[in-house]
Amino acid sequence: MTRSESAPLKVALLGCGVVGSQVARQLIEQAEDLRARIGRPLELVGIAVRRLEIERPGIDRALLTDDAFALASRPDVDLVIELLGGIEPARSLILAAIAAGSSVITANKALLAEDGATIYSAAEDAGVDLYYEAAVAGAIPIVRPLRESLVGDEVTAVVGIVNGTTNFILDQMHTEGTDFSTALVQAQQLGLAEADPTADVEGFDAASKAAILASLAFHTRVRLSDVDREGITGVTAADIAAAKERGCVIKLLARCSLSADGSIALGVHPTMVAKAHPLASIPGAYNAIFIESRNAGQLMFMGPGAGGSPTASAVLGDLVTAARNRVRGGLGPGESHYSERGITPAGEISSRYYVSMTVHDEPGVLAAVATSFAEHGVSLQAVRQESQGAEARLGVTTHLAKHHQVIEAIAELDRMPEVHAGISLMRVEGA
Amino acid sequence: MTRSESAPLKVALLGCGVVGSQVARQLIEQAEDLRARIGRPLELVGIAVRRLEIERPGIDRALLTDDAFALASRPDVDLVIELLGGIEPARSLILAAIAAGSSVITANKALLAEDGATIYSAAEDAGVDLYYEAAVAGAIPIVRPLRESLVGDEVTAVVGIVNGTTNFILDQMHTEGTDFSTALVQAQQLGLAEADPTADVEGFDAASKAAILASLAFHTRVRLSDVDREGITGVTAADIAAAKERGCVIKLLARCSLSADGSIALGVHPTMVAKAHPLASIPGAYNAIFIESRNAGQLMFMGPGAGGSPTASAVLGDLVTAARNRVRGGLGPGESHYSERGITPAGEISSRYYVSMTVHDEPGVLAAVATSFAEHGVSLQAVRQESQGAEARLGVTTHLAKHHQVIEAIAELDRMPEVHAGISLMRVEGA
Repeated sequence: MTRSESAPLKVALLGCGVVGSQVARQLIEQAEDLRARIGRPLELVGIAVRRLEIERPGIDRALLTDDAFALASRPDVDLVIELLGGIEPARSLILAAIAAGSSVITANKALLAEDGATIYSAAEDAGVDLYYEAAVAGAIPIVRPLRESLVGDEVTAVVGIVNGTTNFILDQMHTEGTDFSTALVQAQQLGLAEADPTADVEGFDAASKAAILASLAFHTRVRLSDVDREGITGVTAADIAAAKERGCVIKLLARCSLSADGSIALGVHPTMVAKAHPLASIPGAYNAIFIESRNAGQLMFMGPGAGGSPTASAVLGDLVTAARNRVRGGLGPGESHYSERGITPAGEISSRYYVSMTVHDEPGVLAAVATSFAEHGVSLQAVRQESQGAEARLGVTTHLAKHHQVIEAIAELDRMPEVHAGISLMRVEGA
Repeated sequence: MTRSESAPLKVALLGCGVVGSQVARQLIEQAEDLRARIGRPLELVGIAVRRLEIERPGIDRALLTDDAFALASRPDVDLVIELLGGIEPARSLILAAIAAGSSVITANKALLAEDGATIYSAAEDAGVDLYYEAAVAGAIPIVRPLRESLVGDEVTAVVGIVNGTTNFILDQMHTEGTDFSTALVQAQQLGLAEADPTADVEGFDAASKAAILASLAFHTRVRLSDVDREGITGVTAADIAAAKERGCVIKLLARCSLSADGSIALGVHPTMVAKAHPLASIPGAYNAIFIESRNAGQLMFMGPGAGGSPTASAVLGDLVTAARNRVRGGLGPGESHYSERGITPAGEISSRYYVSMTVHDEPGVLAAVATSFAEHGVSLQAVRQESQGAEARLGVTTHLAKHHQVIEAIAELDRMPEVHAGISLMRVEGA
């Protein structure tokens, strides 16, 4: 064996939290397997941390540094793993690593959704790899299937449960009958939600992932700001009960699909999912992604969407792949944004909706409501009316309709004297 | 753009059946997208067929040849797609293509399971790519996730429904109450089963896929003959009813896992799957693969397991990947067989079992049966006895036990006068 065949590939790790410490441990514990799978050994040469003084069991203190820039820029390093999260200093560090000739593995969904183009272009120009399987849906292989397995197909829709925290909360609300705030506290006690849960419960995390998935599926640059977003803080126990009554479960879905004009419709919304749909039965903090494509048909991938070990698995898979590319020569797939599709304006996105309202229980009300929907071009699939004394609860499921049409119909209904306060609407997925 | 950047990569197609004709059509219809995704255009330069005279709608007759060897050996071809199936002439053609410097995409599970080593070695020696996503579970990305996404993890088990024909038949038996032969005829009428259904219903097809999956998951060369195999022809309506009663569904599972001694346990068997297990709800001709790994935890992938369009999607994904490697330089992952694990003998494989038998309904019988299991080291998880006049039906679910232990216990039970004829056993998956 010549020197170059046995010389280790040098790895720098930026960040040593839950995922980073797990990655560092696996690099040591699985060293022999990784060497065999890559063809050369990996050597962890440094770990950048914010605070040197914290005790980190199983991590060699000599590896730690608080000078992340110096570590990321080392010209002798082959592979840099970025696990800091957030926009800065992560972006500058990744760019420094690329400039120094390293391939980069990152789990940073926020950065990729905010300013992926800068990073992808820099990697492409420098001829280094950029892998980010861990940025979406933890251990579930989804970036690689979209980038490679389905690259000869035409993906038409990607619909996913991509945030485990909100899925856990909604699952608790559904199975235990608790309200949102109680379920949130439970999630926090179990370590499934952060002290400040905004990114999860307001749908920002899911929206970042939707932007990344849409970019991959539709070969177009898509950013977080392109995603129509609604969190789950407004979901009430009454909504859950109404969904149950209709044979549905409420899930926070990230939905990316092609509109009729070829533009990309992107949204993150609490959605009533019919029980027969494969996404309806995804429990607890699991994630799942459902894909529709022209030739492959319907595919679904499920697994743990977060957590130190699952995310580390995705990071190490990317690390081995990038390392193999160094050993065997060549590059993995780069960014693909040739199709340059537009983004469908939020009001123009088509969905099916469930609209419920309290009305006077008297003749002619249903006709008035139906007329209002019809006048706004919204056709109804099902109507259900239930008397409650002098009032009735009216539930209407629409066929596919554009958001602005449904909103306009509701605005008109809201002005009708027969309709009382309390019109609510929610998107519907599945038959 | 220089000549080499715009010059097409030349593609040869061996076989033009359901999948091949679909691949040929997609190469034309999606030409512009494929060119953008690869960076250079693809040009289909020839299609090898057995019979030139057959009418093939949408296929240019000028591309057809009945000289497969000449086509596969063309030195100007970059990528050869083998869709003939079977061992010969497929193997010789693939070796000829590799010798001529082409990368190879194949869907040939039988060949890979029978003699994959020859093909993998030839590709590795020649420095060309060998991709075979379509060989297992149709459009479901599973080869790539195992070869790449999970390559930094330790897979401990792969359990799959990898044959759509048998899943359709068992699903029909379960939902319609039909017997095996009626369900088989239905499958044949729907084009889901061949006139000679042996490869499917006797489990050979699933066993080939199990061998390929185990090779990938455990970095060891595994062959079809290593797989303990049982088809579904012996599954009766009574078995289905017994499974239903126990809250289970019978599925033909391909199971690959690590035994306690580090060897690989491999089997294809009709199995009672608990309804709560994600594999239990896979309907009709769908496939699904469930993976357990040390870090990623439990993952599941589902989708259409066969059919022209889904299989073509997998072939085209591989084609684009192999073509990109030609354009960007470098090679995809090769065979990994460094761990050289042994194969667990069939008798030593641990499973949970459901054993049912008819016994005399008299005191002491249950004790005698329980004693017999205990003497062979089989501990029982659950026992269910149901009187039917002078006889009783006894159903026993075991904890994990080795196959030979269960077989020996049953042989002893069979000799007991209290036990009547009709002892049946089936493996159990899930709680």
